Amino acid sequence: MPEQQLLKPTEWSYCDYFWADKKDPQGNGTMAGFELLLQKQLKGKQMQKEMSEFIRERIKIEEEYAKNLAKLSQNSLAAQEEGSLGEAWAQVKKSLADEAEVHLKFSAKLHSEVEKPLMNFRENFKKDMKKCDHHIADLRKQLASRYAAVEKVRPRMPGWEKAAMVRTGQSMTVALALPGDDLMRCVDLYNQAQSKWFEEMVTTTLELERLEVERVEMIRQHLCQYTQLRHETDMFNQSTVEPVDQLLRKVDPAKDRELWVREHKTGNIRPVDMEI
Amino acid sequence: MPEQQLLKPTEWSYCDYFWADKKDPQGNGTMAGFELLLQKQLKGKQMQKEMSEFIRERIKIEEEYAKNLAKLSQNSLAAQEEGSLGEAWAQVKKSLADEAEVHLKFSAKLHSEVEKPLMNFRENFKKDMKKCDHHIADLRKQLASRYAAVEKVRPRMPGWEKAAMVRTGQSMTVALALPGDDLMRCVDLYNQAQSKWFEEMVTTTLELERLEVERVEMIRQHLCQYTQLRHETDMFNQSTVEPVDQLLRKVDPAKDRELWVREHKTGNIRPVDMEI
Repeated sequence: MPEQQLLKPTEWSYCDYFWADKKDPQGNGTMAGFELLLQKQLKGKQMQKEMSEFIRERIKIEEEYAKNLAKLSQNSLAAQEEGSLGEAWAQVKKSLADEAEVHLKFSAKLHSEVEKPLMNFRENFKKDMKKCDHHIADLRKQLASRYAAVEKVRPRMPGWEKAAMVRTGQSMTVALALPGDDLMRCVDLYNQAQSKWFEEMVTTTLELERLEVERVEMIRQHLCQYTQLRHETDMFNQSTVEPVDQLLRKVDPAKDRELWVREHKTGNIRPVDMEI
Repeated sequence: MPEQQLLKPTEWSYCDYFWADKKDPQGNGTMAGFELLLQKQLKGKQMQKEMSEFIRERIKIEEEYAKNLAKLSQNSLAAQEEGSLGEAWAQVKKSLADEAEVHLKFSAKLHSEVEKPLMNFRENFKKDMKKCDHHIADLRKQLASRYAAVEKVRPRMPGWEKAAMVRTGQSMTVALALPGDDLMRCVDLYNQAQSKWFEEMVTTTLELERLEVERVEMIRQHLCQYTQLRHETDMFNQSTVEPVDQLLRKVDPAKDRELWVREHKTGNIRPVDMEI
């Protein structure tokens, strides 16, 4: 028999590599190659969900951090410091509220631009995969039952070797003196079912392959969105320090002294000697 | 009497404005002008301490944030993602540990470069101020007792107006037919005490003034150190995102498919028709 060429050489395509069943390592039974592809799809959906949950955890951490910074910024420690130093100190405190704001915005965007899309991508995926699964499984059942029909009709002749099973891809030769109509019809029906299964396998596995490429792309894009948000956040955070630096440059001990002395002076008349 | 010139005109110097006592608003007694200056010094020390405590609170917030990020980075969500996407995801998680490290370093430097110096600056300040206080108070007591001595010796003549008190800076004229030796000696002693008090007032208030300028400068420098650390931290934090971006650029669905198919393929022999 002529050697088969891969349908999509060099592409490691799903449609080329999952024809045979997989033996169950535990011992009993087998699993269709197609099942492995389906499991991979479902695992991919699970990964997407878990990544979304991870982002949710990050969001919680950011919200906690923001809450703590906002609270501390309201603290009244050293609030009595006055003058230009007092103003600079007040801005140090305010900058914490600004930082809190930056981190709150970050967490909000993490939610709307990363967590949510990751969670909601292909909401009905499991259902779709189930349909897929049943569809192919039905075709396999059909194939199996038509194989059984052939076996039933095929006469058993002693001495004739049983040909290798169709699953190894070698043709099944049934040697008979007179092939009966029944047998021919059963073989025909079998081949039709196999043809149908074959077609659907190629179509469906290629679709799953496409879905997986899309999934990886979607995740990549959203993780890029994540890093973009991280970059932005660090930049916004940097800008909260600028007003503090400005006020620190304006700190003037002499001016502060003037302010304080003007307010608290008791009297500038110096004592003079007592005279007789 | 000639008009007094300020000792340090335009400088709003402590040595010019705190000669008189301040009336206690509550009603009884007075407080020396000098006391106000001392209180300001002690308040300044309190401000320094409170600023240090504020920084401590910031440190605690940073440590909590770092701890949460480090913990989340160890989380196993989506750890089963494989291939180039799996690597990028693993780096997303690792980057949280890198961020945690950045914030821990930040908190450590906040402690050693801001919190600690602010807390420890002039550890013995209160003691020093107490000495100061007692020193000037002793000179005032001396002055008061020598004033009392003059009063005791000064004869009371009906009809003579009592001259204005020395505290308003007008000379006390004592009209007598014959100023006695006792009186002259008492007035002399008084003037000596006043001279001493005057000198110490000028010296000490100028010293307090200098200390206050130093305090403001010290705080300003350490707050600048704070903003410097903030800048650095945001920059280091930005750099933790770079390795993630690199791996995201390398995400390749086709390569990931090849990897997975090589490992999980069941068989590439396609079925052929059954033949009779």
